Amino acid sequence: MSLLDALKWRYAAKKMNGEKVQQEKVDQIIEAARLAPTSSGLQPFNVIVVTNPELKAKIQTIAFGQSQVADASHLLVFAAWDKYTEERIRSVFANTNTERGIPAETISDYEVQLTGNYTTKSAEENYAHAARQAYIAFGIAIAEAALLKVDATPMEGFNPAELDALLGLGERGLRSVTLLPLGYRDEANDWLVNLKKVRKPSKEFIIEFN
Amino acid sequence: MSLLDALKWRYAAKKMNGEKVQQEKVDQIIEAARLAPTSSGLQPFNVIVVTNPELKAKIQTIAFGQSQVADASHLLVFAAWDKYTEERIRSVFANTNTERGIPAETISDYEVQLTGNYTTKSAEENYAHAARQAYIAFGIAIAEAALLKVDATPMEGFNPAELDALLGLGERGLRSVTLLPLGYRDEANDWLVNLKKVRKPSKEFIIEFN
Repeated sequence: MSLLDALKWRYAAKKMNGEKVQQEKVDQIIEAARLAPTSSGLQPFNVIVVTNPELKAKIQTIAFGQSQVADASHLLVFAAWDKYTEERIRSVFANTNTERGIPAETISDYEVQLTGNYTTKSAEENYAHAARQAYIAFGIAIAEAALLKVDATPMEGFNPAELDALLGLGERGLRSVTLLPLGYRDEANDWLVNLKKVRKPSKEFIIEFN
Repeated sequence: MSLLDALKWRYAAKKMNGEKVQQEKVDQIIEAARLAPTSSGLQPFNVIVVTNPELKAKIQTIAFGQSQVADASHLLVFAAWDKYTEERIRSVFANTNTERGIPAETISDYEVQLTGNYTTKSAEENYAHAARQAYIAFGIAIAEAALLKVDATPMEGFNPAELDALLGLGERGLRSVTLLPLGYRDEANDWLVNLKKVRKPSKEFIIEFN
């Protein structure tokens, strides 16, 4: 199936049937997110996988009762760095150096400039930037799920502070950004499944400068 | 090619060769962005396509001289709504109503609540939220480009205010978010093309709650 066909097939399932997604497919969806490009390759976020039923039930409450959170077999939480720090940036570049056969401790002019640029900004600005990187991966994970015919419902509707507290994300220097429950649509009970998918017409979406 | 293989193939080309991308492929990349999910289906952004050489040259200057902006045959600019307004939200819901066979003028409780929620927030908060939606589509467009073996270099490095002024985006109620030059890698002259792609190891990227 082409990606365009997969994107036409997918929709934001409002009711899932509780069927379990094969681990191999979940792994591929997360791998797509891991391979996503990010600014300067920093990957300033993590993907959290929640399968524990009690925890999913608690998160459902934090997500205003949305049933997919509990009915998904795997709930992905995209969580971004709460701020950029010299240590975090160094760790990424040290790993890249090692993988590319350069001494880990080598610090390029680019790294110095990047670190200076980020660490002089506020934590809130840092987080906003890191969260945007997580959204790139979020989009790519949604694409991969659709290609695998796994239903995935992108969600911003939850209380981030409560979720951060529940999962102990603050101690990890993370803040939750989005949720992506993975599961299968309950065709008989989902009010949205048979409604036509609507998008802005191309002529309104595209602006050309030829 | 699977999406995972496509994501391994792609990289942020630093030097493009000027070869033209077929219009059919460009259309598919933009179509993927158009089909991307967004919060409440509002699609609060546009994709701008720049092929005009003089304009690309000017944007290259605004993008700190990055050569891909000029060497790409098609430069995509993702630009988000500068704010949510009742009129904009109404227009989206009216279109959805029409497409679903409901009178265009029908206003649901959901729409009333959504409009109230957005329009009481600041323009800056609105824009930040709209930009995040553009990032979902940006990620999906990057995925589609990779599947089509078109090189695409995600870019945040440019002066948004200058770009907005150059393209007259303010008058359209838009603010530029990201650039995505589409073209083909210049293998002989790109310093990055043969360097190993590096990502955070899965065990550091994934956090599990089982």
